[in-house]
Amino acid sequence: MTFIDKLAAAWTANHSLLCVGLDPDTAKFPAQLRDRPDAIFAFCKAIIDATADAACAFKPQIAYFAALRAEDQLEAICDYLRKTYPAIPVVLDAKRGDIGATAEQYAREAFERYGADAVTVNPYMGFDSVAPYLEWKDRGVIVLCRTSNPGGSDLQFLSADGKPVYQHVAQLVAEKWNTSGQCGLVVGATFPNELAQVRRIVGDMPLLVPGVGAQGGDVEATVKAGRTASGAGMMINSSRAILYAKPDAQAGEDFAAAARRVAMETRDAINAFRF
Amino acid sequence: MTFIDKLAAAWTANHSLLCVGLDPDTAKFPAQLRDRPDAIFAFCKAIIDATADAACAFKPQIAYFAALRAEDQLEAICDYLRKTYPAIPVVLDAKRGDIGATAEQYAREAFERYGADAVTVNPYMGFDSVAPYLEWKDRGVIVLCRTSNPGGSDLQFLSADGKPVYQHVAQLVAEKWNTSGQCGLVVGATFPNELAQVRRIVGDMPLLVPGVGAQGGDVEATVKAGRTASGAGMMINSSRAILYAKPDAQAGEDFAAAARRVAMETRDAINAFRF
Repeated sequence: MTFIDKLAAAWTANHSLLCVGLDPDTAKFPAQLRDRPDAIFAFCKAIIDATADAACAFKPQIAYFAALRAEDQLEAICDYLRKTYPAIPVVLDAKRGDIGATAEQYAREAFERYGADAVTVNPYMGFDSVAPYLEWKDRGVIVLCRTSNPGGSDLQFLSADGKPVYQHVAQLVAEKWNTSGQCGLVVGATFPNELAQVRRIVGDMPLLVPGVGAQGGDVEATVKAGRTASGAGMMINSSRAILYAKPDAQAGEDFAAAARRVAMETRDAINAFRF
Repeated sequence: MTFIDKLAAAWTANHSLLCVGLDPDTAKFPAQLRDRPDAIFAFCKAIIDATADAACAFKPQIAYFAALRAEDQLEAICDYLRKTYPAIPVVLDAKRGDIGATAEQYAREAFERYGADAVTVNPYMGFDSVAPYLEWKDRGVIVLCRTSNPGGSDLQFLSADGKPVYQHVAQLVAEKWNTSGQCGLVVGATFPNELAQVRRIVGDMPLLVPGVGAQGGDVEATVKAGRTASGAGMMINSSRAILYAKPDAQAGEDFAAAARRVAMETRDAINAFRF
């Protein structure tokens, strides 16, 4: 089954557009986990088990593992996800971008080593830096387009031939790079008008939409701007607001229960505006 | 000592602008190394020992290690370089690019875990995706500008406000991002005219110039286009032509001796046009 089909099935089965981002910051872990050698795995596993029925995808952020020499724990998490929740796609957030021979290695990292269903990539180096990922025909390739951070405008909003660079990216991917239907785009929730522009350019292509939750994107505006005619088409990502919900936890909740509550609330808030 | 100072000292001490790229492709290793569990380390160590007096920098490409679960061997290589050749800077070729909180993790990966003197980064997400690296005041941050691959033109050559995107990147880095003198740029050798344009924009900023050697860039045109008034200012990278010189080896040469000969030849070819 391809990434796109798996994602579409998860949207339906879990009635959810919520992507749970796994950005494990050990400084924010509950005290009982912090000293375990497998603290990152244990934390992520608890979050996964608590939120899997509310999610359409999980998105581990590789930087958090790389900084701590914890690639083995990322492997274990991907393995756990594949075996325990095979119907939920795993998007490895790596944002790689390099020339062809090197991109082949990064594709092996994402798809062979971690077994991810999809990977995020950077478009700055152009098509031949993306093509090696597309050789993995059942996997997804999600290209950065319009990002949710303040500096995103530095290059993405430069105007070339009457339209901003991010729209050129959307058009390149939709018209040239997506020959086999494997592509998606990253478009931040902090710019609903631009999300709507991208949706017009790319038809039903799946969009990974970070920026809801801790980054402050508005759920209603995001969903209305990015939804497809069938009320889907997006993985709306929330990481920190779910992972570290515990400081605002209700009485009796541990971190996983708090994460579950916030995930369910976010899923429901999204669903309220899908149709 | 800062990265920039260390690089300038290495230019002088080794009378070289050659950066030796470490892209260890195990399929191309000599037979006697291939089955060793530390094959990657052993191969890179032999290349390093054979070329260190001809190089101004070493540039390990992290993708080759990540694909093979060999981060431990990359750590060992960086450690070996730091202890054995402390005067030669190590540029970790990672081309990371992500929002601030994640970029902090990638900076730790490059500078703390691997102890690199500098790291390559991608500008697509803008200044706040680069700023966390600049917090490491003695390290260098080398921003992708104009890349040597065919697809490089897809975005980098879009014209915005009368000039191509890659020149916007050069100008942003020179005028805004480089507040503490830590920045460099990646500019491919396959486009000497554009290299000259970038040199005019950025003054004496160091340029990492891939594309000489296997990628076919012309050494004379590259050096004349990119040199500073003092005949330096560049790390001209060659990877495959040096690492895998053996198939064209002269009688009696092993892979390391062949690598040394090609490195010396490349250094000398560069030096012929520096002044």
